[in-house]
Amino acid sequence: MNELKAEIIAIGDELLLGQTLDSNSHWISEKLTEIGIFPCRRTTVGDLREDILDAFSQAKSRSNLVLITGGLGPTNDDLTKPLLAEFFDSDILLNESALEDVENYFHSRGREVSEVNRKQAELPDKCQKVTNAYGTAPGMWFEENNTVFVSMPGVPREMKGIMTDQVLPKVKEVFDLPAIGIKMVKTVAIGESVLAEMLSEFEEQLPNHVKLAYLPEAGEVKLRLTGRGKDKVLIDKELSLLEESLIKIVGSYVYGKGNETLASSVGKALKNASSTIATAESCTGGYLAHQITSVAGSSSYFMGSIISYNNEIKKNVLRVDNDTLLKHGAVSEQVVIQMAENARKMMNTTFALSTSGIAGPDGGTEEKPVGTVWIACASELKTVTKCLHLGSKDRTLNIHLSAIYALDMLRKEILEN
Amino acid sequence: MNELKAEIIAIGDELLLGQTLDSNSHWISEKLTEIGIFPCRRTTVGDLREDILDAFSQAKSRSNLVLITGGLGPTNDDLTKPLLAEFFDSDILLNESALEDVENYFHSRGREVSEVNRKQAELPDKCQKVTNAYGTAPGMWFEENNTVFVSMPGVPREMKGIMTDQVLPKVKEVFDLPAIGIKMVKTVAIGESVLAEMLSEFEEQLPNHVKLAYLPEAGEVKLRLTGRGKDKVLIDKELSLLEESLIKIVGSYVYGKGNETLASSVGKALKNASSTIATAESCTGGYLAHQITSVAGSSSYFMGSIISYNNEIKKNVLRVDNDTLLKHGAVSEQVVIQMAENARKMMNTTFALSTSGIAGPDGGTEEKPVGTVWIACASELKTVTKCLHLGSKDRTLNIHLSAIYALDMLRKEILEN
Repeated sequence: MNELKAEIIAIGDELLLGQTLDSNSHWISEKLTEIGIFPCRRTTVGDLREDILDAFSQAKSRSNLVLITGGLGPTNDDLTKPLLAEFFDSDILLNESALEDVENYFHSRGREVSEVNRKQAELPDKCQKVTNAYGTAPGMWFEENNTVFVSMPGVPREMKGIMTDQVLPKVKEVFDLPAIGIKMVKTVAIGESVLAEMLSEFEEQLPNHVKLAYLPEAGEVKLRLTGRGKDKVLIDKELSLLEESLIKIVGSYVYGKGNETLASSVGKALKNASSTIATAESCTGGYLAHQITSVAGSSSYFMGSIISYNNEIKKNVLRVDNDTLLKHGAVSEQVVIQMAENARKMMNTTFALSTSGIAGPDGGTEEKPVGTVWIACASELKTVTKCLHLGSKDRTLNIHLSAIYALDMLRKEILEN
Repeated sequence: MNELKAEIIAIGDELLLGQTLDSNSHWISEKLTEIGIFPCRRTTVGDLREDILDAFSQAKSRSNLVLITGGLGPTNDDLTKPLLAEFFDSDILLNESALEDVENYFHSRGREVSEVNRKQAELPDKCQKVTNAYGTAPGMWFEENNTVFVSMPGVPREMKGIMTDQVLPKVKEVFDLPAIGIKMVKTVAIGESVLAEMLSEFEEQLPNHVKLAYLPEAGEVKLRLTGRGKDKVLIDKELSLLEESLIKIVGSYVYGKGNETLASSVGKALKNASSTIATAESCTGGYLAHQITSVAGSSSYFMGSIISYNNEIKKNVLRVDNDTLLKHGAVSEQVVIQMAENARKMMNTTFALSTSGIAGPDGGTEEKPVGTVWIACASELKTVTKCLHLGSKDRTLNIHLSAIYALDMLRKEILEN
């Protein structure tokens, strides 16, 4: 077959009404990309005959591989099977092998096959059955005029099992796939537009088969290089060189590559340096510690944290000086310095991070508006501080950004040490 | 306008390649449904001229309201603006009001506007600017032949802000919508199927214009009653009565209504009782404190937390007895009791919650597999404990569920006190 075009159709009212998050289409996209298939479209339709048939015809007119999820249950609102039969001009007949599967499924669980479930073993005669070892609704594989339609259940566990065991291997067999290479470079504390200016020359000089994408998140921008070719080894080699140049241009804003997160990359650096970390948090309220401990294995370098939300805890547990609190206020350089230094001593760690600020939405003053956050990082030799002016009243965002900037501060301290 | 058809288009290679989960389309679906608009289709296309234009024409041929997210950044792979201009036969000109917005956005953050950002203030002349108070790319509102196209940034925080502040109110103005009433009842620590059995009779007796939906999340199930009619007051009255019956049936599994979260509902109860709370966390690593402090105003009842990830911190800061740690291990009833009781005393609070468990993915033993978590809640009179067997190796899920069950334990203790 020539240039492969693939798309995904998800069927179900519960998706369109925002009741169930369509994680299936996302997962399928990821898996297709990994074997070198770029899906060109995803469509979600409800449990409506006309809409489903329309989605089928459009997909057929555009693509060679159409992966469909949902609408395979035993109830009346499940239309995928009869409509696929109609679309491919098929009769629905009892499939002996599918019946055997259903019987095995139930008998292995010590249950009898009901009439409703027996009906699930009826399949359009023009499709090949795709065995479902994870549930009662078999998948279907239609092949006609260089186009493949695959229908799978909407239950994520069943769909993933069928895709992994059966559909992906068969797709690799049937289609002649291009080689795809992907490199992801992660940056922090730099805006998308500044990055774009930095990288404009690099981007202009990219070969046609390589694309650079900017994927911004709060506080971070992911840079993705995608290359297409015939030879996986060549593409990967080419992308590695391009990735290297890109990292050189962006410099110290790069904290990691691939699947690394800021917290995992900082964790790796701590581990490599046999260093440990503690936090003393006010405005981040535990979120900074949560970011660090969301990394599996973080117990080898994260010792603990004192969340001193109330000033009494700052004084009585963290031993922050009462006069300093009175003179400068809780949101001050002097207080975050004491928080970090005392936490480091109490928990006997290489580094300690502290935060104190006004997360919002209320509580700001003229002098210290919402979004004013002091952060500090203490080590044996010195304590560095920074005042953030986040300029937002969004509590969730302010907490998140404070943690990101604190982790970035730690990252730089580890690099220097 | 007559029968309203709405659809959603999400634009971005990162979605099609499965690198970013399209949570935007899901959120928009939910919000449209809440104001009585049932989306009939969702489409995702990549950063490709032909595919985007094709999605626009198809949507225009089917629907009156088309909500578009993504592709509005300042970089070259962002095509939505030029293609919308082409599609609506518009010239792209500098929009003075949008420029003012961008300038304000940067100046309030003490930064200068770059050339790239200035370009974001250029808009197709046939659209109305939709102010983006959350970022630099303005939204666009096109109205032509009874069809509205709205373009919004793909960054979820910006899209949600714009939708809430501007787009939803304007949609309600422009379109003739049915009266919709919605009641949301929040339950915790009970499964969807058990709830469905409890509510089967209630559900059967619902009038045709009222629907009950089960929206499961990790540890929680939201129950949504949606009623459609002509008179908003009547619908709301009817739904209030139904909501009351529903809450009676489900009983103490209900923790709140409407927009309440488990943390906000527990916070409200603490405030009403003039009570305070502290946490002592091991496996939740700060996530429990973060849940509590994600609620605005939580500083009035949350004092602080000791995250004792390492046993040394359990001993030296939280004063957990060394013999107890050696004899029973950190993941034990005896240890969570001491953690909660000592934290309560140290921080002088009405209640203290503690957690200690194996979040995974590794670190389990035969006796205490991954997902084994002890939680405790101490008050002046007593300390209650619970052992969770979460049966999952998913670290994120285990941390989340531990916090949910701990908050639920506190909720019940407050009710009893």
